[in-house]
Amino acid sequence: MSTGHTHKTARLPRITEMAHQLLAERVKAGDTVIDATAGNGYDTLFLAELVGDTGRVHAYDVQNSAIQATESRLSSAGYSDRVELHHASHTAIAESDEPIQAAIFNLGYLPGSDKHIITQADSTLEAVQAALSRLISGGMVLLVVYVGHAGGEQEAEALECYMRTLSTRDYLVLKYEYINPDNRPPYILAVEKK
Amino acid sequence: MSTGHTHKTARLPRITEMAHQLLAERVKAGDTVIDATAGNGYDTLFLAELVGDTGRVHAYDVQNSAIQATESRLSSAGYSDRVELHHASHTAIAESDEPIQAAIFNLGYLPGSDKHIITQADSTLEAVQAALSRLISGGMVLLVVYVGHAGGEQEAEALECYMRTLSTRDYLVLKYEYINPDNRPPYILAVEKK
Repeated sequence: MSTGHTHKTARLPRITEMAHQLLAERVKAGDTVIDATAGNGYDTLFLAELVGDTGRVHAYDVQNSAIQATESRLSSAGYSDRVELHHASHTAIAESDEPIQAAIFNLGYLPGSDKHIITQADSTLEAVQAALSRLISGGMVLLVVYVGHAGGEQEAEALECYMRTLSTRDYLVLKYEYINPDNRPPYILAVEKK
Repeated sequence: MSTGHTHKTARLPRITEMAHQLLAERVKAGDTVIDATAGNGYDTLFLAELVGDTGRVHAYDVQNSAIQATESRLSSAGYSDRVELHHASHTAIAESDEPIQAAIFNLGYLPGSDKHIITQADSTLEAVQAALSRLISGGMVLLVVYVGHAGGEQEAEALECYMRTLSTRDYLVLKYEYINPDNRPPYILAVEKK
């Protein structure tokens, strides 16, 4: 979003724009961050730009094709050194306790890939909890939630139920959703640590 | 929100901050805008600042105490000339077809006043529809929805049902809500005209 006082051309940011905006506002050079669902590597690349030469992105994916696509995208941009690729479930986030500034989860299936390989409520919830436990004050865990595919509704419901239990003493949970959609666009659940 | 690249002190804007941010990003000097619920006049004053000497704010309230409080606040700020106060229901928005850049509705009851005098689903819906019909392209109708008082749930449900029927060809409807609340904070429904 613009500062709004010189240009008045604002329009509501769409879901992907909003996700990137929320990250760009918080992640700075030198930070350690997580892309929990590397997928085609777009978010990994975006985070690699934000953390700069001195920062670190940890990117996870269970699918070999996703790791390869991400590796190739980072290499083209010259950012390979900034990113550690984990060919593993994002539940492996729990294997470290290094503090993080942000984590992003793009739920659902890998675009252009097997729609039966989807993120699952159980493991996603476990990974989200691990990410939250590593979050520094002012940091954010960001979920882009897709509900249009089989299994999407259940995963979304499980995540939202969990989010609603988070204490307002420690966290603020924003739901950012377009409610007059043509075809079930994703929505954002953003958890900010106080 | 900041532009995010120099300072990294962003935090999620609370509901009132977000409402003002959405208005500030869109309303400029010379615009015509509506405060559909003048109340204690805070939003009227905020809008009067945004539209400047050449713009116009139309502010509505059924309660005499609200009109007086708003009048006094505007007078202190020297903005009386920028605002037309309507001691009337916001359904009177339908009585003009002058194009508007924005309208804000703060639903519920007037703070510090009789909690039995509340905005009602029927008339609010009528007023929202009138505001939408006067909206220019890029403009916004902004609702701050309170659900903590008697009648609040019904009004919120009626409004949200209506919002969900708006065609995505013409409008984008954002719901901006904190979902781990201590005590039912308000949420935002923002309708942007394409």
